Amino acid sequence: MNDLIELVNKKLDEFMPICYPQKIFKAMKYTVTLPGKRLRPILCLECCRVFGGKIEDAIPTACAIEMLHAQTLIHDDLPCMDNDDYRRGKLTNHMVFGEANAVLAGDALLSFAPQIILKNSKSLGSEKLVKIMEEYCQAAGAYGVIAGQVVDIESEKLYSNFDDDEQTPEILNFIHEHKTADLFKLALRTGAIIADADEKQLQAVTDFAQNLGIAFQIADDILDEVSTFEQMGKTLGKDKNSGKLTYVSLYGLDKSKEDLKKYIDTCRNILVENNIKSEIFEEILDKTAKSVNK
Amino acid sequence: MNDLIELVNKKLDEFMPICYPQKIFKAMKYTVTLPGKRLRPILCLECCRVFGGKIEDAIPTACAIEMLHAQTLIHDDLPCMDNDDYRRGKLTNHMVFGEANAVLAGDALLSFAPQIILKNSKSLGSEKLVKIMEEYCQAAGAYGVIAGQVVDIESEKLYSNFDDDEQTPEILNFIHEHKTADLFKLALRTGAIIADADEKQLQAVTDFAQNLGIAFQIADDILDEVSTFEQMGKTLGKDKNSGKLTYVSLYGLDKSKEDLKKYIDTCRNILVENNIKSEIFEEILDKTAKSVNK
Repeated sequence: MNDLIELVNKKLDEFMPICYPQKIFKAMKYTVTLPGKRLRPILCLECCRVFGGKIEDAIPTACAIEMLHAQTLIHDDLPCMDNDDYRRGKLTNHMVFGEANAVLAGDALLSFAPQIILKNSKSLGSEKLVKIMEEYCQAAGAYGVIAGQVVDIESEKLYSNFDDDEQTPEILNFIHEHKTADLFKLALRTGAIIADADEKQLQAVTDFAQNLGIAFQIADDILDEVSTFEQMGKTLGKDKNSGKLTYVSLYGLDKSKEDLKKYIDTCRNILVENNIKSEIFEEILDKTAKSVNK
Repeated sequence: MNDLIELVNKKLDEFMPICYPQKIFKAMKYTVTLPGKRLRPILCLECCRVFGGKIEDAIPTACAIEMLHAQTLIHDDLPCMDNDDYRRGKLTNHMVFGEANAVLAGDALLSFAPQIILKNSKSLGSEKLVKIMEEYCQAAGAYGVIAGQVVDIESEKLYSNFDDDEQTPEILNFIHEHKTADLFKLALRTGAIIADADEKQLQAVTDFAQNLGIAFQIADDILDEVSTFEQMGKTLGKDKNSGKLTYVSLYGLDKSKEDLKKYIDTCRNILVENNIKSEIFEEILDKTAKSVNK
């Protein structure tokens, strides 16, 4: 896995030269190249390999998805959204480059990312490029991560004002599905498309992404409750303090840990049932399951 | 021209149903459907027609470019950018939907616009769709409108601090080229691509867009200086009051009017030299030339 992280870091650096006006390119690169697990690009590359594709063919798409992920972080951290000063132990984008440049850096990444795919993946052919663009736009927009973010921002209000408690789990599920699972889906589905996977295989990785995404978000909610700033590199306990709707606030810590395990088991079953053999997917599942026991 | 405006308005409405979460789709649609001249979509449709294409084939792309234009307006108006309360006589997006939703509505449009093209222009074939995506990403991102906006925001500082006055016209030109001409280029070039125009024709409309874009920006700077709020529907005199770099602040009102005429004449010559016959292009040039004499 470390080899893949190094490869992704090297390529992200190569794909992002500092052009004029330098301030915007520096702001874009700052958040994209913050140290990170590179989980989404690795899911994309490994999914391509698993279905018999060449990982070189998936590198531009994998890196573009990391850029899109960085875009969501830059805008989520803005004063008008989550108002976070730190991310991965470093100052957030607007703290370094100012709010206007942070808005524009996020905007720019939304077009820069697909441009990286279009420029560097010509060998895939037009038909596949169009499919990848369709997946990208669906995940990046109002049907994807943004739907999750909009409902997430409102969730505090929704949670405290909601008369019909039966709908609350649905709302939480909607947030997790779109904020987290949608980018995992994008990574895995584009990796599969590049490798010419068939419809059944595409459906399998879509289900895998859905369950992995929710598992990740449950783990994140648990960590927000139990970790320290030093462990996480960002301000914690904010969810709790703001009375925000999270998995832990809705179901409690014990059931959250149980359900995390269930979602991880579902992921494992999907791999077995579809004969998908990947040490890297196994490692990601193990780490996610264990992350809350630190 | 009014028929085309009506067609674009009808299609913009059709392309933008209000889905869940409604708030984000309403925010997106609010700014896109504000009354406007629909100049960019009309340039796209007319350019397609002029080179022998069917305007129906260009409608999704034309509407997508209007959505992209609306995106730039939403984010430019934000408190951390130009901090404008009114646009086309109506409250700006963040004044109606709040700052967080305005940021997210702009983000969402950046993916929604190309998605409209991909979903509704399948008959163009993959190769053309890829070309249109390339043009779109180039114009929407850090090499396009965003480059212009970044330098524009800094221009106040640049103008007052710049030691080397010889570079100031270059900076102003850079801002106008990217903030305005780049979306005109996108509109005309995609219209031409859809109509299977050749390289020479593509170059002609690129030059036309470049000159029209600068003419438009000069007219805008003149109007900011001489018009009233009632005429323009937005807060005026802000450029002057903030000491911002504009065509009028750099060259004075008389030379600005002269140069506006020169750029319009260059546009007319490009049409004649390339045998491009369009009453609509002529009408746009006439209106732009006369707009400052109200």
